[in-house]
Amino acid sequence: MAGGHTVAAFDAELAALHSAIDRMAALVESQFATALDALATADAAKAAVVVEGDAAIDRLEMEVEAMTIRMLALRQPMAKDLRDIVAALKIASNLERMGDFAGSVAKRAVTLAGLPVVPPAGSLTWMGRTVLEMIGDMRRAYAEQDAALAAAVRDRDGEVDAAYTSLFREFLTYMMETPAQITGCTHLLFAAKSIERIGDHATNVAENISYLVEGRLPAEERRKGDHSSFAVAPSSTPEG
Amino acid sequence: MAGGHTVAAFDAELAALHSAIDRMAALVESQFATALDALATADAAKAAVVVEGDAAIDRLEMEVEAMTIRMLALRQPMAKDLRDIVAALKIASNLERMGDFAGSVAKRAVTLAGLPVVPPAGSLTWMGRTVLEMIGDMRRAYAEQDAALAAAVRDRDGEVDAAYTSLFREFLTYMMETPAQITGCTHLLFAAKSIERIGDHATNVAENISYLVEGRLPAEERRKGDHSSFAVAPSSTPEG
Repeated sequence: MAGGHTVAAFDAELAALHSAIDRMAALVESQFATALDALATADAAKAAVVVEGDAAIDRLEMEVEAMTIRMLALRQPMAKDLRDIVAALKIASNLERMGDFAGSVAKRAVTLAGLPVVPPAGSLTWMGRTVLEMIGDMRRAYAEQDAALAAAVRDRDGEVDAAYTSLFREFLTYMMETPAQITGCTHLLFAAKSIERIGDHATNVAENISYLVEGRLPAEERRKGDHSSFAVAPSSTPEG
Repeated sequence: MAGGHTVAAFDAELAALHSAIDRMAALVESQFATALDALATADAAKAAVVVEGDAAIDRLEMEVEAMTIRMLALRQPMAKDLRDIVAALKIASNLERMGDFAGSVAKRAVTLAGLPVVPPAGSLTWMGRTVLEMIGDMRRAYAEQDAALAAAVRDRDGEVDAAYTSLFREFLTYMMETPAQITGCTHLLFAAKSIERIGDHATNVAENISYLVEGRLPAEERRKGDHSSFAVAPSSTPEG
């Protein structure tokens, strides 16, 4: 991009900013993978590692913020350089939220590990794997400034939302049939919601990548596929 | 603030930015108040108004973003002016999320309105009222650049988190005792979580106000009072 910033110093700062974002995203990816693993195996020790690891993501967000403010103040960037910096600020904020939600999933895993019986978490595993793939693609789209890949990430969010809605119905039914599992199911439902929200934030990041690369937001309105707010169990009384 | 921007044009742009943020916040406040009302009275028509109204908040966020990018590009602000603009960008993003969560509360109200029996939503009312007060104080703190009031908003978040945790336990118990109310209770639990998250975002905005006024983030780590991730019902089997 031809701007007023052909100086090598600015390019070095921009590279450092990109690298900080990628370090944040890599941490989010590994934190989330570990949280899913802890949830699937009801492993409290593994979950505790995720809860503690969140502070590193928060620190990186503050670092990114300090870098962007310094660059805005000293370099007075224009056009694509300015978009690049504003996008970094927004992406970092989304990554920080994703880290928080990975922590929420891990906290639910701790609680589930302490329950006498745990409901089957299989439906969450597929959802979690899809979101994990979205995060991997999101990282690649950012590193390669690939707007097409970013659009593909965004398109997958509908799958996740649909899976979450069907899982919500499934768990409501299961709770009515198995009241002893209500506590476990409720925590799994909230874990599923956190996973769905991580997918939403990955989609936001993908939209920021599109903006950064193409200078405008995707024209099409994002499909809102999470209809779980309206979900009721097939029969609303277990006694029928 | 003595900067390079004594020009009246910049001050006018800053005033327009502040006014756009306040319009966003006022919309969030009224959307949330209406959503709470719809929840308390299980009024689907009122809830539908909130769901439709969210687009106006999203449009205002894009407006704020366009204003900030233009100001960064053309005015090259420094020091407090720069903080003011960066804070606006972050506050707008939090307000947009708050609007989304008000919409989530409203969607749950629609579903509850369609159920044959609805569990008592009284505990949510107190929580909702506290968060509504936080939003009012947050608006005043922004308008008056009052860091002390911003700190007071932040301090109230602990009350909301504690109320949410106790409500989570209460609802688990209620579901076990009244399986016919599982669907209703689950939607109320998610509505409560959305209310709690609106409180979190009001707290984020309060922190951004502190940063904007004082040039640094509050030193003290924010207390994390939502322990509901670890909550189990007093007895985990209803037969027990």
